[in-house]
Amino acid sequence: MTLKDFFDNDRFAVGNGVKLIEFGEGRAIAEMQIEEKHLNGAGTVQGGALFTLADLAFAAAANSRGKMAVSLDANISFIKAVSSGKLTATASEIYLRRTVAGYKVDITAENGELVAVFNSTAYRKEQEPKKTDVL
Amino acid sequence: MTLKDFFDNDRFAVGNGVKLIEFGEGRAIAEMQIEEKHLNGAGTVQGGALFTLADLAFAAAANSRGKMAVSLDANISFIKAVSSGKLTATASEIYLRRTVAGYKVDITAENGELVAVFNSTAYRKEQEPKKTDVL
Amino acid sequence: MTLKDFFDNDRFAVGNGVKLIEFGEGRAIAEMQIEEKHLNGAGTVQGGALFTLADLAFAAAANSRGKMAVSLDANISFIKAVSSGKLTATASEIYLRRTVAGYKVDITAENGELVAVFNSTAYRKEQEPKKTDVL
Amino acid sequence: MTLKDFFDNDRFAVGNGVKLIEFGEGRAIAEMQIEEKHLNGAGTVQGGALFTLADLAFAAAANSRGKMAVSLDANISFIKAVSSGKLTATASEIYLRRTVAGYKVDITAENGELVAVFNSTAYRKEQEPKKTDVL
Repeated sequence: MTLKDFFDNDRFAVGNGVKLIEFGEGRAIAEMQIEEKHLNGAGTVQGGALFTLADLAFAAAANSRGKMAVSLDANISFIKAVSSGKLTATASEIYLRRTVAGYKVDITAENGELVAVFNSTAYRKEQEPKKTDVL
Repeated sequence: MTLKDFFDNDRFAVGNGVKLIEFGEGRAIAEMQIEEKHLNGAGTVQGGALFTLADLAFAAAANSRGKMAVSLDANISFIKAVSSGKLTATASEIYLRRTVAGYKVDITAENGELVAVFNSTAYRKEQEPKKTDVL
Repeated sequence: MTLKDFFDNDRFAVGNGVKLIEFGEGRAIAEMQIEEKHLNGAGTVQGGALFTLADLAFAAAANSRGKMAVSLDANISFIKAVSSGKLTATASEIYLRRTVAGYKVDITAENGELVAVFNSTAYRKEQEPKKTDVL
Repeated sequence: MTLKDFFDNDRFAVGNGVKLIEFGEGRAIAEMQIEEKHLNGAGTVQGGALFTLADLAFAAAANSRGKMAVSLDANISFIKAVSSGKLTATASEIYLRRTVAGYKVDITAENGELVAVFNSTAYRKEQEPKKTDVL
């Protein structure tokens, strides 16, 4: 099973319309087309939907480095409320150490406007990522 | 439309099985019965599902104070991977000021074990929460 | 050299008037009497002074568990501006795992009012804390 | 009193050797020459010293936008322990809204290596920054 298959098997991300577009070398891009099901009571994309999109991009970037990486903690700043269109999450590596690494993810709207920013610290296990491990 | 109706209209939370159990006076409790759809590629509850559960409890607690409150930023620490059972998110108020307020949410498993902790800073608008506002 | 000596040798904390009052079993208390030197341009205690106070309490709590612990990341929320009196930082353990642990620190004024809250994730090394190690 | 004078009157930053080099248009640079007084018990720069350096750069960047800005919360990730040389904090704006704004600060060593990253959310008051206000 490839790492791509692994993320295709992320039922929460897939079920919520998050698509992994590309990843590798500490970077990743994921997308989500906004649908009715992503909205909160106010009619804008729910914070959990934005987090899920960012988290998948983070996980793909962090696991592209040959070791299984799990999030220790993450923070997200909500910048702009959106209610339609496609959102893109772009993950990049801030630092990479033996056992921990840091990533940031920008979520942007189709017009390039910043919707949210996400940062997460990953713990890197002494093994390659694989399906049977706890991610 | 009551505040309860407002949260019942949160399509992302409802669609992902998050239930608001009670809220008021800066506090709230939400629950989520873990299902197949909440799992990531490793078979444990996805970080975005945990965030969504915590976020609803936070939003209910923050909006129980008579002003519309929106999250400026949130952070979550992932403590224990879980794959079955019911999760409970308990939100409490850390501080309440005129325009900002802070809340923490503990997510616990059925055995009381801590699964994740979430903190969020809310911005409080000069109006009562209502459906037509951006929450 | 005891752990107490170790913190007494923290030149930044000591030089800035931070005193470790007690620690052990994942808990710690530190204090700082506000002086002119702690103030920012507006005449209130600078954020860095509050962070330093909280950080010492965190470090003492985290290193009381038999392994050397270093902060991976920390966040602080500023709740109330203060300019005189004694501040107390009380650190407590949120979770303790083999290689990571989480702590929160409340900073309170003499009247018990909350001034700031701090959370930090510690990485726990496979060795006892000692002076010659990088803390 | 200019904004530059305001920061020169930050007794905590000045007393701890933090120098504001330049600021304007949502950006700022501050420096700190590492001295004995910045070290913790392990002989490396204390987390509070790094935070103080980053916080001054943040405050200068956030207050360069014509409104008084105060930090609501901040987080810092500690990447590399250092014990000598000059540290540079470079603040940049992530987003700027009417009442809130986000800034990140990179702290680098003389060789360009990343020592810490800092993010803070600012609350922007409806007035110009000035000495008599609470910053």
